[in-house]
Amino acid sequence: MSLKSMFNDIPFVEQLGMEITAVGDGSAAGELPLRDGHSSNPEAIIAHGGVTYSLVDTVGGAAVVSQSGSVSPTVDMRIDYLAPATTDLRAEAEVVRDGGSVSVVDTEVYDADGHHVASARGTYKTDGNSGESPWTRGVDDSEVEGLAGDD
Amino acid sequence: MSLKSMFNDIPFVEQLGMEITAVGDGSAAGELPLRDGHSSNPEAIIAHGGVTYSLVDTVGGAAVVSQSGSVSPTVDMRIDYLAPATTDLRAEAEVVRDGGSVSVVDTEVYDADGHHVASARGTYKTDGNSGESPWTRGVDDSEVEGLAGDD
Amino acid sequence: MSLKSMFNDIPFVEQLGMEITAVGDGSAAGELPLRDGHSSNPEAIIAHGGVTYSLVDTVGGAAVVSQSGSVSPTVDMRIDYLAPATTDLRAEAEVVRDGGSVSVVDTEVYDADGHHVASARGTYKTDGNSGESPWTRGVDDSEVEGLAGDD
Amino acid sequence: MSLKSMFNDIPFVEQLGMEITAVGDGSAAGELPLRDGHSSNPEAIIAHGGVTYSLVDTVGGAAVVSQSGSVSPTVDMRIDYLAPATTDLRAEAEVVRDGGSVSVVDTEVYDADGHHVASARGTYKTDGNSGESPWTRGVDDSEVEGLAGDD
Repeated sequence: MSLKSMFNDIPFVEQLGMEITAVGDGSAAGELPLRDGHSSNPEAIIAHGGVTYSLVDTVGGAAVVSQSGSVSPTVDMRIDYLAPATTDLRAEAEVVRDGGSVSVVDTEVYDADGHHVASARGTYKTDGNSGESPWTRGVDDSEVEGLAGDD
Repeated sequence: MSLKSMFNDIPFVEQLGMEITAVGDGSAAGELPLRDGHSSNPEAIIAHGGVTYSLVDTVGGAAVVSQSGSVSPTVDMRIDYLAPATTDLRAEAEVVRDGGSVSVVDTEVYDADGHHVASARGTYKTDGNSGESPWTRGVDDSEVEGLAGDD
Repeated sequence: MSLKSMFNDIPFVEQLGMEITAVGDGSAAGELPLRDGHSSNPEAIIAHGGVTYSLVDTVGGAAVVSQSGSVSPTVDMRIDYLAPATTDLRAEAEVVRDGGSVSVVDTEVYDADGHHVASARGTYKTDGNSGESPWTRGVDDSEVEGLAGDD
Repeated sequence: MSLKSMFNDIPFVEQLGMEITAVGDGSAAGELPLRDGHSSNPEAIIAHGGVTYSLVDTVGGAAVVSQSGSVSPTVDMRIDYLAPATTDLRAEAEVVRDGGSVSVVDTEVYDADGHHVASARGTYKTDGNSGESPWTRGVDDSEVEGLAGDD
């Protein structure tokens, strides 16, 4: 399974309607068409902060995994909201620090008009295969192998 | 309309299945029953980081608005993931700095067994009624009045 | 008094040996020659995290004030350390969101060889003249006027 | 050498006048008497953001090292300033996540009157002895052994 397919098969990625469109060499890109149900406002469509964040966390994670080749849970994330998001979203992520145990990735989010609506930086754990992290407990072996093989 | 109802009527709050259970005096609490579609893993139910964050952003925002009495968009948020979340989530938020233009709120997330799964701190804008912020453009006047009246 | 002089006259800026070298239109730059006393290590000169941060907070603040024209205290800051800093430091800051009540500024730190050693993002309060913030209590009126006049 | 002495012998800790007063079992405390040279204001003594941060980074690091027993460089830190600091500072740090490769620590700063002036959360790398991190390159072996022995 390709890394792109693996991310696009994540249940919450499917439920929210996100799609990873490109991934490799420490970078990734993804899209999220904005629907009524994503809004923080009953009277208008303005993306809820959690919608924008979900795209950030997913695309950032894909960028990290494309380098680490292992399950890489998010350790922490800071997101800054720069403008309201009222149209379809796309995100671009790039690893800025690729460490043996942690990676740092920057993710920028734009709306359909190219406005910069959010900017985020996250730290991910990149030695997830060591079995030390509880995030990997429920992870199927074949998934990790598929992931590693994709690197 | 009560502040609690206003938050529970937000489209994304409904779609994700969140519920604000208490709000007032700079505090708020909320719940999120974990469903298959919230998972970051096709083989098991482990909350996607965006699911946990969405609960944080919503409950934190409710705590802020209970003091500010105005539309209070998130300026920035840092979330730290402390343990994997595999059961229903609940969150508790408390304002730690109540300023005239910005408020800072801490939100803690626990699973059904009481494990501390995430911890977050966010800065919200609290002078949203001034019309200066683009986040308020789509907001219905009656909603803001309801909000202010609820304070 | 120019904005550059005002920042360079700050007691801690002088004590640490920092210098603001350029400021205006939402941008600023500054330098910090690394001394033995700045080290986190008795055996070698590796900048203490607080030294690098102090340069970030100062240069970032100068960038914000060049736009806001008012006392602009830091609300919050996230700094990421990307590589150890063992030579003289320089920083470049640029405002990425210029709001009526808060501004967000990105600051990058490089060593003498051009390596990217730290990256930070901070939120500053930009309505400091309103008297609402306690940070402005000790501030001399003439300083604020000088500041506003410099804008 | 005790862990407390090791931190108090750090050149920048001495230069700024900080002192680690207690450390052990994932906790630490420290003090910083406020001097004229620490101010962000030529007319009054208000701690520069970098002064407060330097205390946070040091006390937080001591708490982490008391558990990790290895050189533990800061990966990232978020600090929130809650009130102006105009008197002597003291800080208390406690590890909230003790991982094999990263630890997360919360540090609170109070002034001499007990006011809560700043609150921070940082992620530190805790497998520093592996030689993978460039931060450990300049570190003397005896220091690392002393550190490990102190654990």
